[in-house]
Amino acid sequence: MENFDFQKEVAKKKRIISTSLKTEKADLVLKGGKYVNLFTREILKGDIAIRDGIICGIGNYEGEKEMDVRGKIIVPGFIDAHIHLESSLVTPYHFARAVISHGTTTLIADPHEIANVMGIDGIQFMLQSSEGLPVDMFFVVPSCVPATSFDENFMKLDAKVIEPLFQHPRILGLGEMMDFVGLSEKRNEILEKIVSSEHHNKLIDGHAPGVSGDLLQAYISAGIYSDHESSTYENALEKLRLGQWVMIREGTAAKNLEALIPLLKEHYVNRLLFATDDKHPNDVLNYGHIDFIVKSAIKRGIDPLIAIQVATLNPALYFGLKKIGAVAPGYHADLLIVDTLENLDIETVIKSGLITYEHMKVVPPHKPVVRKELLEKSTLTIRNADIQIKDLLNSEPLGLIGLVKDQIITKNLGKATAVDLSRDILKIAVVERHHATGHVGIGFIKGYGLQTGAIATSIAHDAHNIIVVGANEKDMVAAVKEIKRIKGGMTIVTNGKPVGSLPLTIGGLMSQLPLEQINDKLEDLKGRAHRLGVSYDVDPFMTLSFMSLSVIPEVRILTQGVFDVLKQKYL
Amino acid sequence: MENFDFQKEVAKKKRIISTSLKTEKADLVLKGGKYVNLFTREILKGDIAIRDGIICGIGNYEGEKEMDVRGKIIVPGFIDAHIHLESSLVTPYHFARAVISHGTTTLIADPHEIANVMGIDGIQFMLQSSEGLPVDMFFVVPSCVPATSFDENFMKLDAKVIEPLFQHPRILGLGEMMDFVGLSEKRNEILEKIVSSEHHNKLIDGHAPGVSGDLLQAYISAGIYSDHESSTYENALEKLRLGQWVMIREGTAAKNLEALIPLLKEHYVNRLLFATDDKHPNDVLNYGHIDFIVKSAIKRGIDPLIAIQVATLNPALYFGLKKIGAVAPGYHADLLIVDTLENLDIETVIKSGLITYEHMKVVPPHKPVVRKELLEKSTLTIRNADIQIKDLLNSEPLGLIGLVKDQIITKNLGKATAVDLSRDILKIAVVERHHATGHVGIGFIKGYGLQTGAIATSIAHDAHNIIVVGANEKDMVAAVKEIKRIKGGMTIVTNGKPVGSLPLTIGGLMSQLPLEQINDKLEDLKGRAHRLGVSYDVDPFMTLSFMSLSVIPEVRILTQGVFDVLKQKYL
Repeated sequence: MENFDFQKEVAKKKRIISTSLKTEKADLVLKGGKYVNLFTREILKGDIAIRDGIICGIGNYEGEKEMDVRGKIIVPGFIDAHIHLESSLVTPYHFARAVISHGTTTLIADPHEIANVMGIDGIQFMLQSSEGLPVDMFFVVPSCVPATSFDENFMKLDAKVIEPLFQHPRILGLGEMMDFVGLSEKRNEILEKIVSSEHHNKLIDGHAPGVSGDLLQAYISAGIYSDHESSTYENALEKLRLGQWVMIREGTAAKNLEALIPLLKEHYVNRLLFATDDKHPNDVLNYGHIDFIVKSAIKRGIDPLIAIQVATLNPALYFGLKKIGAVAPGYHADLLIVDTLENLDIETVIKSGLITYEHMKVVPPHKPVVRKELLEKSTLTIRNADIQIKDLLNSEPLGLIGLVKDQIITKNLGKATAVDLSRDILKIAVVERHHATGHVGIGFIKGYGLQTGAIATSIAHDAHNIIVVGANEKDMVAAVKEIKRIKGGMTIVTNGKPVGSLPLTIGGLMSQLPLEQINDKLEDLKGRAHRLGVSYDVDPFMTLSFMSLSVIPEVRILTQGVFDVLKQKYL
Repeated sequence: MENFDFQKEVAKKKRIISTSLKTEKADLVLKGGKYVNLFTREILKGDIAIRDGIICGIGNYEGEKEMDVRGKIIVPGFIDAHIHLESSLVTPYHFARAVISHGTTTLIADPHEIANVMGIDGIQFMLQSSEGLPVDMFFVVPSCVPATSFDENFMKLDAKVIEPLFQHPRILGLGEMMDFVGLSEKRNEILEKIVSSEHHNKLIDGHAPGVSGDLLQAYISAGIYSDHESSTYENALEKLRLGQWVMIREGTAAKNLEALIPLLKEHYVNRLLFATDDKHPNDVLNYGHIDFIVKSAIKRGIDPLIAIQVATLNPALYFGLKKIGAVAPGYHADLLIVDTLENLDIETVIKSGLITYEHMKVVPPHKPVVRKELLEKSTLTIRNADIQIKDLLNSEPLGLIGLVKDQIITKNLGKATAVDLSRDILKIAVVERHHATGHVGIGFIKGYGLQTGAIATSIAHDAHNIIVVGANEKDMVAAVKEIKRIKGGMTIVTNGKPVGSLPLTIGGLMSQLPLEQINDKLEDLKGRAHRLGVSYDVDPFMTLSFMSLSVIPEVRILTQGVFDVLKQKYL
């Protein structure tokens, strides 16, 4: 009771009470507007008084500062219920800078990618680098690191290792339980993680694409509270009826809003949330974030108050965040000032009572201070990757991976012996980068289109080893060496020399540059890749990054060669 | 991770998953019925499979035991969101026995009375004596002990004292914050308790009868999440709009359902709960518990699915109880089998998968083991009360309390000098019983009706000193001595001898006997009291028990005399 923060909180309460009672002025009053009341689903009039970042009254109030919001509508700040921040290629700081203007004031991130690369340190890095930002960032502990026992990642996060994390106030539970097969096989490692999260009275998020019937009953009975992988109305309704909170996902890679729109009606709406899962730089810049989903729903005829509830109060309730998600006394003043509910044009964003976006400009937040040791570790994750030409040579035929247009699945095309540009057969390799095992898996790929040189990236789901594709081994070796030189990232090499590189020094996944700069560099690299022949049907880097994902059929390339996903064994 | 319970939980998950997947049989299957789905607000068909007390599937299932529920409807067990168990005069064990047949499977109790008498030990007693019962009992920490600084209770529960309690898994927050005036005056002691509960991520319940406008904004801004004191539609709606969860209270002393019925409609229902606050023995036996409120709402035309939601899923959501309040996989099998939604005749009650009520019979639960030391302490709380005739004599005129028919308020009738039976003026006294201060407050009361002898009780809100009313000092002294002899309870004395007594040895508030026996004894005593002249307009003991309640206008009797509530000082 004696500690400073406790008394500081008491003093803050006193100021808030004084403001409610009008014996002291508010810091800020939004005067003369209307606001969205989600408890009664109505639009009401009232000045909104803010003190110490908290709403302390709705009615008639005076403030040190007053903002005329006549004709405007006040909406609670938006919440992304599930996102992997790493997909944006920027740090939480720069992600916050980019999405605050879109009205995002809270998000719940699953630091699954960085955890594969840095283990617990990666989660700590995300926690530290998101402290005190104008977007409140909560986390769930990644549940499936590594994704399978075949993935050579940095470290395995078992129940013992993750248990202490559940005590962190910004860790809300266990992240998407992707391994529903392992769960149905009652594997100890999975059940222990679930029990650990439950033991701390925290949540467990789900990930069960197409799972239905008895398997779904088992999955939910085991304690999985939510799902963001429903791509059909029927599957989502089955999950809702069985008690899951359904996250309607609309992100860069996967888009389910269209299919799930009919859910956004009375009797179903209370258990629905919005999530993006993954947002790539150009998608954030071109379309926005949760605001884009809300607007899309409204354009499709959904009641704006329902769309807003799903983006605000519902995720707050699901995650047990008692003071956000609504416009009411005692709630954090995370508020959006919009023109109309139909347009939802966000003119001003107020976070914890401070104006963070106004007149088309974002007020730059303070950068969080990250422990030096964590920042240093984050730049060292490529140091163990090494490769020579002999590692890439083959005498025997190797597996040939066939890309499928517009899809993440691949086809098992049998085997190939050598690069054959006339038939679009390229060599592909994965170079282990975490433990200096010297493992280099090699194979062939068809459908990528590159005509010369090599392309490499250190983003390679889920273990994020270095993946490289090339028309010849020399350029492939040069590309991997370039990735190592730039401490992780993406590169294109022709004639033994890099023609363009994008360093992603944080774990080989993220940059410290702003989103706009990263996007420019990435778009430039993608343009170069296409000019070197990469098919316009594929995203040069994203497609590569999925080639190592050992859970999506039919075949993938891992650190020890081409892998048959359906049989779960190397070819 | 190594401890036994952890692995036990994992093993339990395995059995549940096997049952969901139908590779192992359920313990119990409710076959062929319909059930209430609150997530989608519909009635669906399906067998309900239960293993280890958990629902692990809804569909087609087989079980070791199967119950034919064709033609029946399965409803989740009911939750009382706010009750002072002490008012039932029985222990949690006997309360559970009495209400399980009414479908109550969870309640949230505020052990405010026993805490005034035994302090932290009283709360520990309630926690221990409610372990493992067929009604899950959660608690909130009483926030206002003592009620005012004038109340001489056992101990003051300040923020430091209560802080460790918030770590208990069955303590969900801070109990009803009655002192809204103190809160508006920004008293440290109050704000510290609120901050302490928030710091542990727990709730704060409210109690703000008629509070409105700026004061209500201050109260809610300070962090009070709920209220159970709305007696008008307008006041409840104001609270709902400001974000509070509104508990519709329908108990023995206060009944608000009639006034708040119009709230039970779409757009308001999600933030409503049911609560009883106080349930006296005859009320439980004659009318029931939460089932009575649900049925009353349905009789008044409310959609049964809405009434059930308010009694089940809503309180579970408010209190963050993730696994109760609905019929779904992973949820506790707390289920009621009813005939129709219109009648809601509860035929069978299943708690954690076990049949606890069937064929009009309750399966007696195991008695919780209470620490011997706590049980002993609970019987010793009257030991400090002492009194002699001289303590009751007065030479000066003393305050005269006027009872008001059918109301808890009193009138300040000026002063009186002596008992005058012809004018229904009796002597009244409060004898301090916690700290041997020897304090005896004396005064006069009009409107009670007693014609001879004395009546005393150790239930005297909120400090629960001994209150005694009499036609003469000699019988009053004898009555107090009898209360001391029986270690707390109620008694009637004529001609210096007890003519009937009801021992309440647990803190002078509760008995260890079953509810039916207590009710018989109490009704017998009440009959005797009336035959001695006590007006049929007053409840002989309940009316007395409120005469010491220092927060209700206009005048009360405390340990140091007649007290002017409005002026907050002794006459």
